[in-house]
Amino acid sequence: MSSSDSTPQVSWEDKVKAKRHEQQQFVPSEWMISPIGDNITNVLDIPNNLGLLSPNELQITASDVSTLLRNLSTSVWSSVEVTTAFAKRAIIAHQLTNCLTEIFVDDALKRAAELDEHLKQTGSVVGPLHGLPISLKDQFCIKGIDATMGYVAWIGKPAQRDSAIVKLLIQSGAVLYVKTNVPQTLMWGETLNNVFGRTLNPHNIGFTSGGSTGGEGSLIAQRGSVLGVGTDIAGSIRIPSHYNGVYGFKPSTQRVPTFGMVNSLDGQDSIGTTAGPLSVSIEGLKHFMQAVLSSRPWMVDPNVIRKPWDQDAYELKEHGNGQKLCFGILWDDGHLKPHPPINRALQMAKQALEKAGHNVIDWVPQNHRELNANARSIFLADGSADYLSGTTPSGEPLLYSMKPGADPNEIPPFRKPRQPLSAFELWQLHKERRELRQKYFDHWNATDGVSGTGRPVDAIIAPAMPYTALPHGMTGPATYTLVMSTLDCPSLTIPVTKVDPALDIQPPPHEFRGSDDEDLYNIYDAERFAGMPVGLQLVGQRHEEEAVLAMGAILDDALKSL
Amino acid sequence: MSSSDSTPQVSWEDKVKAKRHEQQQFVPSEWMISPIGDNITNVLDIPNNLGLLSPNELQITASDVSTLLRNLSTSVWSSVEVTTAFAKRAIIAHQLTNCLTEIFVDDALKRAAELDEHLKQTGSVVGPLHGLPISLKDQFCIKGIDATMGYVAWIGKPAQRDSAIVKLLIQSGAVLYVKTNVPQTLMWGETLNNVFGRTLNPHNIGFTSGGSTGGEGSLIAQRGSVLGVGTDIAGSIRIPSHYNGVYGFKPSTQRVPTFGMVNSLDGQDSIGTTAGPLSVSIEGLKHFMQAVLSSRPWMVDPNVIRKPWDQDAYELKEHGNGQKLCFGILWDDGHLKPHPPINRALQMAKQALEKAGHNVIDWVPQNHRELNANARSIFLADGSADYLSGTTPSGEPLLYSMKPGADPNEIPPFRKPRQPLSAFELWQLHKERRELRQKYFDHWNATDGVSGTGRPVDAIIAPAMPYTALPHGMTGPATYTLVMSTLDCPSLTIPVTKVDPALDIQPPPHEFRGSDDEDLYNIYDAERFAGMPVGLQLVGQRHEEEAVLAMGAILDDALKSL
Repeated sequence: MSSSDSTPQVSWEDKVKAKRHEQQQFVPSEWMISPIGDNITNVLDIPNNLGLLSPNELQITASDVSTLLRNLSTSVWSSVEVTTAFAKRAIIAHQLTNCLTEIFVDDALKRAAELDEHLKQTGSVVGPLHGLPISLKDQFCIKGIDATMGYVAWIGKPAQRDSAIVKLLIQSGAVLYVKTNVPQTLMWGETLNNVFGRTLNPHNIGFTSGGSTGGEGSLIAQRGSVLGVGTDIAGSIRIPSHYNGVYGFKPSTQRVPTFGMVNSLDGQDSIGTTAGPLSVSIEGLKHFMQAVLSSRPWMVDPNVIRKPWDQDAYELKEHGNGQKLCFGILWDDGHLKPHPPINRALQMAKQALEKAGHNVIDWVPQNHRELNANARSIFLADGSADYLSGTTPSGEPLLYSMKPGADPNEIPPFRKPRQPLSAFELWQLHKERRELRQKYFDHWNATDGVSGTGRPVDAIIAPAMPYTALPHGMTGPATYTLVMSTLDCPSLTIPVTKVDPALDIQPPPHEFRGSDDEDLYNIYDAERFAGMPVGLQLVGQRHEEEAVLAMGAILDDALKSL
Repeated sequence: MSSSDSTPQVSWEDKVKAKRHEQQQFVPSEWMISPIGDNITNVLDIPNNLGLLSPNELQITASDVSTLLRNLSTSVWSSVEVTTAFAKRAIIAHQLTNCLTEIFVDDALKRAAELDEHLKQTGSVVGPLHGLPISLKDQFCIKGIDATMGYVAWIGKPAQRDSAIVKLLIQSGAVLYVKTNVPQTLMWGETLNNVFGRTLNPHNIGFTSGGSTGGEGSLIAQRGSVLGVGTDIAGSIRIPSHYNGVYGFKPSTQRVPTFGMVNSLDGQDSIGTTAGPLSVSIEGLKHFMQAVLSSRPWMVDPNVIRKPWDQDAYELKEHGNGQKLCFGILWDDGHLKPHPPINRALQMAKQALEKAGHNVIDWVPQNHRELNANARSIFLADGSADYLSGTTPSGEPLLYSMKPGADPNEIPPFRKPRQPLSAFELWQLHKERRELRQKYFDHWNATDGVSGTGRPVDAIIAPAMPYTALPHGMTGPATYTLVMSTLDCPSLTIPVTKVDPALDIQPPPHEFRGSDDEDLYNIYDAERFAGMPVGLQLVGQRHEEEAVLAMGAILDDALKSL
């Protein structure tokens, strides 16, 4: 950085004002809504009652991905029509929860018109996602559009190229129309940054939307999008999916392209960032994964393994054709005891699966604390050098808390910067992680004797977080999701239920495992948390993406038949 | 390390003496041979004329892997008979070239007898490698046997567990009988360490056997083994294959298990160590890869991707069924001009492939210098901390030269230690490497317009080194192999020809690209190098192991039909 860069002519606050003003210019004025009442907390139903969306648009935005794709490919609905509906609903959602970053509806409508014309002229679709609007987490780059990732210093530096996944989505016929909000540094389970501010949870706007794919989580819950693309390195797809009551899928590394996006801790390859879908249904996730994996993704990103969509794996050929599966339920990792609604969701999953004829056993956690500690040491190995390279050039503060009105000097223990590590020290962490992974999978593969199927446990069902979405600023470390990232396992988040104060009664205090466990116990408040969604993770072994989607559908169906 | 460890009671030289004495105890005295004459340089034919091997044993050790497996599975030959023949020949080879480290013939014969008994009792083989003796590079661990990797400090610390690949080989029916020599630190293209000394090239014992899988290269060239397992991070399988005139295969990372072996720069995961086979023929390599990839290797090493042997890929379904391929020939990387015999081998490959009806175009190298510099910076990121952790506890010197009688203070430029890097600096190298890889594959995939097949170039044919094996101590950096490791491409080494002074005439000096290029020109000596083998690399895209083996067979057949 030259000294002129570090002494900006314009204050960072003024740069933010200009950026927000610019954003506002992309909101069609006819889609502006009046402020909602102060007493409203759940905003999910507002778009349905504004009169801004036509009955047809309400029907479109209430549809699932399969219906949309079918109606788009058969010209029942034009892409312009569908894109308009979702753009309108996204803009409304944005006004309610502040979920968007970049808005490019005009480009989207132009693209949609071209796709409509193509279909009309040729009679055939461009690809499996023909005409479908897809939202993108801010990290993904579209040539000519900013990808600030919430850093002030990155404002006004439009991307020079499309991300690899953007190339594939365009090849597949998708329409891109908005990008969505993220937390500063991405390494948070909530969404707040100095450029775009905070994203709210539509189930209760006093609660966080989660993070780092918090904008997507909020937008999709509001049906401002049916299919969005996020990223996950420690829980960033799974946490907002769980918090907002939507479906989300974190693949293993190296299956979905991540080349050409902006990132936090960029170059940290020890625990890879994964890209994956969030959607309103499990089949939405499947449409995305099948489209991506069937399009030779290794041609746009050589880090992607040469392993196309595997229909046999989806049909669970290696899991007894899905006839009788064995699920292991992780009730408690032994460190942070999940809140009552999470426990109830796990009970529901057990009951539903047993009713559907599957085996369910208890999953014994193995070295979760060590796996999480190892990952955290890796993420903090640069002593915050990467974070500071994002904030320093503009002079904006690095956030140490997401609590409204937080004292900027108050640093929660799990955010404390550490001394930077040497490359050699990092290598020692890799050795430790390798042994921990091996132990975990040996443990897993040794369950063939207790599963009742002759196979190791087919999938693990686990909390996504030990709690539901919390009031802003209270989310702690994401140990239940991070452990699965350290293992590089594919993990699906499925909405199961919502907090019900009549059912989710706080039990008497257990023997606390530490102050974090005690704090967690004390923050539970069934009345205050009422109605917040509860999702669960379904976790398979590394590179079992197809099987996890299939087993997720089995769990989802079983829950719906309870 | 405690201070008592760093102040050894016994000198490192005495520990070496004891270890070598111990090694000698495992050599059956009836297999000892008399010293060979001082004037003999090529020792390849000696085992055939000693009278130690019976005619049947000569026939067994001259057989290819397919014949051996067929005769073993049909009880034409017993495993005891085959193991005895190869063990005897390996012991002879060891006396001629010092290629072995650990010798455990008694264990092997016991195992062979058990396999013979199993076949007799059940009528069926244990697995696809039933009864076949397989040699292992010293890095691989067998419970109860030392894996010193040539470090004095590691003597007398037998492995506590089997390496993952050892588990798979045993499951597949293989017989393990010897481990083979490596260079200190492994990061050399020659083989010399303070424990076991130097391994010689059987084509000319004044020449290096290459490294780091130099013991295997030498042993297999002498038919003391038909199939061995090596490792390669920068050329360590490919260089000794080329130097000794054998076949070698370096897969991409994450296909063949590497868990549970000792390693150099352990935990350095940026450019992964790969394990792969060396053999007397291409079908030997295929037997190994097919056996390993068909045995669910991800169950013993979760770092292995879930991608079983792919018969369609082997049948070149994605390469026009192999009917008309396009090969790109890398004549010269623009930095180190290959010696005349290497150039002639490339000409032979071109002629053979064209005669067989394939297209051959020139391969334009892309950022080879940058790719190599990036990898070297990664390997040196610890400032030699890992190397010193191997040598310091015993007090043995860290080797900076492999020249006989070298001044220990004389450090060649490419071996100079560097300042250690921070984890953050390492991350920056990862970002650079990601861009360089992407550029390379974009360049490769853009050759579909010039290949004449409509597909990108199917495989690259390149020198393994810009020279043949050299007299001891002269091997320089392995830039032609390392670049393919940095790209994580599978690469096969195929023997093509031998140095012929009548054909391989030094051309007049070209315009040198640097002192290394000039030095390289000046060391060429056709008369002195006469008879040394010349191999070439055949390189495919990442995770195209099956296709590379198939295209290698096409090149091998074409060369044999020239």
